[in-house]
Amino acid sequence: MCELLRSNFDERYSEVEAILKSAAFIAIDCEFSGLLSSPEHKSSLFDAGWERYVNLKNNVQEFMIMQVGMTAFAYDREGQKYTAYSFSIPIFPRTCSSVDRKFLCQASSFEFLCHYNFDFNKVVYEGVPFLSYELESQLREELKQGILFRHLERTVSMDDERNLQKECSRVAEWAHSAVEGDILKLSSESTRYQSGKLAEYLLLKELRRRFPSVWSYIEDGCVQVKKVSTVNRKCLQDNEEESILQENLVKHFLGFSRIFKLLTELQTPIVGHNLLLDLMLMYNQFYKPLPESYTTFKKDINTLFPTILDTKYISFEAKRIIGRDKLVSNALNNLYEFFKQGPGATLTTPAPGVEFAAEYIPSNLHENFHEAGWDSYCTGFCFIKLAYVFAEKLHGNPEKPMLYKSYTNLELQKAVSHLKNRVNVVRADISFITFDGADPKSERPQWLHVRARQNKYLDSSQVAELLAKCGVVDVKSYSRYQALVAVGNHKTARDILMKFRDNEDFKVSKYNPLKHSRFIRSILWSCTLISGSACIWFALKVLSPKFKM
Amino acid sequence: MCELLRSNFDERYSEVEAILKSAAFIAIDCEFSGLLSSPEHKSSLFDAGWERYVNLKNNVQEFMIMQVGMTAFAYDREGQKYTAYSFSIPIFPRTCSSVDRKFLCQASSFEFLCHYNFDFNKVVYEGVPFLSYELESQLREELKQGILFRHLERTVSMDDERNLQKECSRVAEWAHSAVEGDILKLSSESTRYQSGKLAEYLLLKELRRRFPSVWSYIEDGCVQVKKVSTVNRKCLQDNEEESILQENLVKHFLGFSRIFKLLTELQTPIVGHNLLLDLMLMYNQFYKPLPESYTTFKKDINTLFPTILDTKYISFEAKRIIGRDKLVSNALNNLYEFFKQGPGATLTTPAPGVEFAAEYIPSNLHENFHEAGWDSYCTGFCFIKLAYVFAEKLHGNPEKPMLYKSYTNLELQKAVSHLKNRVNVVRADISFITFDGADPKSERPQWLHVRARQNKYLDSSQVAELLAKCGVVDVKSYSRYQALVAVGNHKTARDILMKFRDNEDFKVSKYNPLKHSRFIRSILWSCTLISGSACIWFALKVLSPKFKM
Repeated sequence: MCELLRSNFDERYSEVEAILKSAAFIAIDCEFSGLLSSPEHKSSLFDAGWERYVNLKNNVQEFMIMQVGMTAFAYDREGQKYTAYSFSIPIFPRTCSSVDRKFLCQASSFEFLCHYNFDFNKVVYEGVPFLSYELESQLREELKQGILFRHLERTVSMDDERNLQKECSRVAEWAHSAVEGDILKLSSESTRYQSGKLAEYLLLKELRRRFPSVWSYIEDGCVQVKKVSTVNRKCLQDNEEESILQENLVKHFLGFSRIFKLLTELQTPIVGHNLLLDLMLMYNQFYKPLPESYTTFKKDINTLFPTILDTKYISFEAKRIIGRDKLVSNALNNLYEFFKQGPGATLTTPAPGVEFAAEYIPSNLHENFHEAGWDSYCTGFCFIKLAYVFAEKLHGNPEKPMLYKSYTNLELQKAVSHLKNRVNVVRADISFITFDGADPKSERPQWLHVRARQNKYLDSSQVAELLAKCGVVDVKSYSRYQALVAVGNHKTARDILMKFRDNEDFKVSKYNPLKHSRFIRSILWSCTLISGSACIWFALKVLSPKFKM
Repeated sequence: MCELLRSNFDERYSEVEAILKSAAFIAIDCEFSGLLSSPEHKSSLFDAGWERYVNLKNNVQEFMIMQVGMTAFAYDREGQKYTAYSFSIPIFPRTCSSVDRKFLCQASSFEFLCHYNFDFNKVVYEGVPFLSYELESQLREELKQGILFRHLERTVSMDDERNLQKECSRVAEWAHSAVEGDILKLSSESTRYQSGKLAEYLLLKELRRRFPSVWSYIEDGCVQVKKVSTVNRKCLQDNEEESILQENLVKHFLGFSRIFKLLTELQTPIVGHNLLLDLMLMYNQFYKPLPESYTTFKKDINTLFPTILDTKYISFEAKRIIGRDKLVSNALNNLYEFFKQGPGATLTTPAPGVEFAAEYIPSNLHENFHEAGWDSYCTGFCFIKLAYVFAEKLHGNPEKPMLYKSYTNLELQKAVSHLKNRVNVVRADISFITFDGADPKSERPQWLHVRARQNKYLDSSQVAELLAKCGVVDVKSYSRYQALVAVGNHKTARDILMKFRDNEDFKVSKYNPLKHSRFIRSILWSCTLISGSACIWFALKVLSPKFKM
């Protein structure tokens, strides 16, 4: 596991770049500062793709990615194995010029991260900066116009100010007696300034502005000045493009955004586990504000990342091959255990192996689920195994399973190519979103319609609680007497219709699209949602019979 | 310095309560998660009290207090000295039932805190919870209705769920063979649950619900069960008020809000340094959402804290006695140095001394400005010295300074009583806000009026930059040809009128209230504000002549 930190990012970037360029695919996982900005924005089985998008957009756009986990999987054709390069990257905004980002945090998300020993100090102190495309343009424009100097009292701390003053007066004294060719080394490195690269940039610029017979530059990571003739100075200035200094500064503040851009340029397949939110937050944070239009969002994501593979979605599909009884849970940790040492390991024995590159082997500290670096590795690992399952289905002979034949990376990628750009959606009308085309038709059962008998008032919470005994349901009440029910699966729907056929208080029937006007569909959007399953969670889970006295 | 943490708060509360009850005054300082939600909400010399309030309210209401520093100063009449009890209290919201607070963070504020080695992990992991009055009512209501159990999947982690299950089945097995009077100790302490007290509460309630012949209770900080007869059980249940369990849970989640309430009940004088924002954020976080009306806010604060003393404001007033040449800076650290070892130390030699109580002596780690606990101590220290200055002015004989006579706490408080409930306002039309009455009249110079000559377009930024050479100004342009200028002090106003009398591009005159309608005042509210001083900050500060070649 390699930690990319604010203090080593610039220095390690070219190494990261080389690794990403040679990757067969790149797995990604993000940790967020929050998920749900308002309890009204709850997900439900009623949500179509666009509804879910709008809902999530309203929810998440103020939250922030605080950690990116990224594992590049390089394929070694000869060794028939993958080499994994895992990165754990804390992310935190930095102020620069007028850029001073705000972000929202949610108590429950922080509690969740605490359960997994998340290091918040590392995020704040060592978080790699980032700039959306918009903020990058803004910063470039401000540098061009010299506006940077107007926001100094915010950008540079008092200590930095004092240090900059000291350096300037040191040069003034030195320049007095120095002769042409003399060199003075200033700050040993930019880190002695709290505002780092920015203070360095300001110092370089300020020295050039003040001292016409001195040339300031960076060498061996430290600011140096050289006494030169005015002619020579002009010559040096003409040779150095003004923009190089600025470019270096912008690069520094771009931080993780450089990786984001590189990923969009490389167009290497991106693998994630249930990555809809990851995609939305990355878009919002590193690209531009989430668009109003769902179609625009899908199109943009498809342009940025033309090949996306979601192991959550793929593992649901794989259940049809492996069997629901064998592959029980699709949670990342369970999926990993399944393929690492469970029945899935035997099943996929001939699949290409995965080894960590030297110096990228995670420590115990990192081998934790919900540590983004580790999660991204597990995601990629599961992807290889899942792809193998599909390749075997495609090419293998079920009567003569060739237990020792493996597949190349290309064969694996091809075997799941019909599943690409489909991203899992939790508890919605559809089970996945399609990024390179129209969303699928819903496979959920028809909605159910509940009407109170004898014109009694219909208590929707009670209805939700009752129906939830049969399975996952969401209830939307739309009048004092009626409610609609979206049901998780066909078995639950059948059970409900059967079980509540003779209920005294209400009548349950299949929703009839002919009977229900567009009007009702439209008002449903603003209705109160009641999720039945959550209400009786405790009763169902804790009160299982074996504990009863 | 005593750190009040989530893990020791409940246990130490009664000690804190006793200390606060015996305090002569209590100094407070807060650290925030952000300050400026939008750059449009910049403070300016144009702002009247209510304008500043509205402006700050829009700015800060989503931010959060992340650390409270609090020092109680007990007065020892015999020893003629104060004993200081300093507390450093990280603050962080906790989820409970439907309570799941969100808060905004700002990059620049976090950078500021980083400069002072702020420990963000301590805040998130060990932050003491809090509940506003509203959220407290909401939680109580939900407990009463048993709604708590509906939000379990959010409140209790998977690990906790498993642990609760285990405990329940352990009790089931034990109860099977246990005889009346048998006791079983369960979880050694609530901290073994990630959700702490909440899990403990759920366990107690669940055990009582499931096992009619078992009594669950807490003893020695651990959950225990006792096998009892059904009659005995009923008896125990009747004796224990149902609400005691709930009350303990609510108390736990109230956390710092218990201290806030205690402070409002005690009505002990509250001392702070430039504490307008502290008051606003405390109101918003621990009391209720900031009201629309400025008057309501002032009245509420005055009811909650009838005696507020602002050392920033008092030190400005003290300059008139001490002399502006002696007391140069009003920043807390400078003020502290002034009275601790500067000229102020000699001046206030007979003032009552201040000693830390044993076990409250700060470590080196805590003796840092911008560590809230330390800052609150320094604020209280400065308050005593400042009060002495006023007492000496009042009672002392200037011809025969009685260098060895000190004043009692009561005398000191009385000496500054005319300054109470006045809180400093930075860069506004007035220099302080009055909490127990009408705000003062402005003592700033009359606004200046700038009109372009020969109907040329007036470049307000340029005007601001030019005028700022004379001192602090804020410019609001309200037509293509005109702008108003609010000026920091009378000398600057005179200088501007003098210096720009013959300016070719524009004419500067005193603003004439008769010439300017109400209309102009009202449109000014929405005008773009340009602060002259910031634009040339760098030029003024860094380019001071001694560094020029």
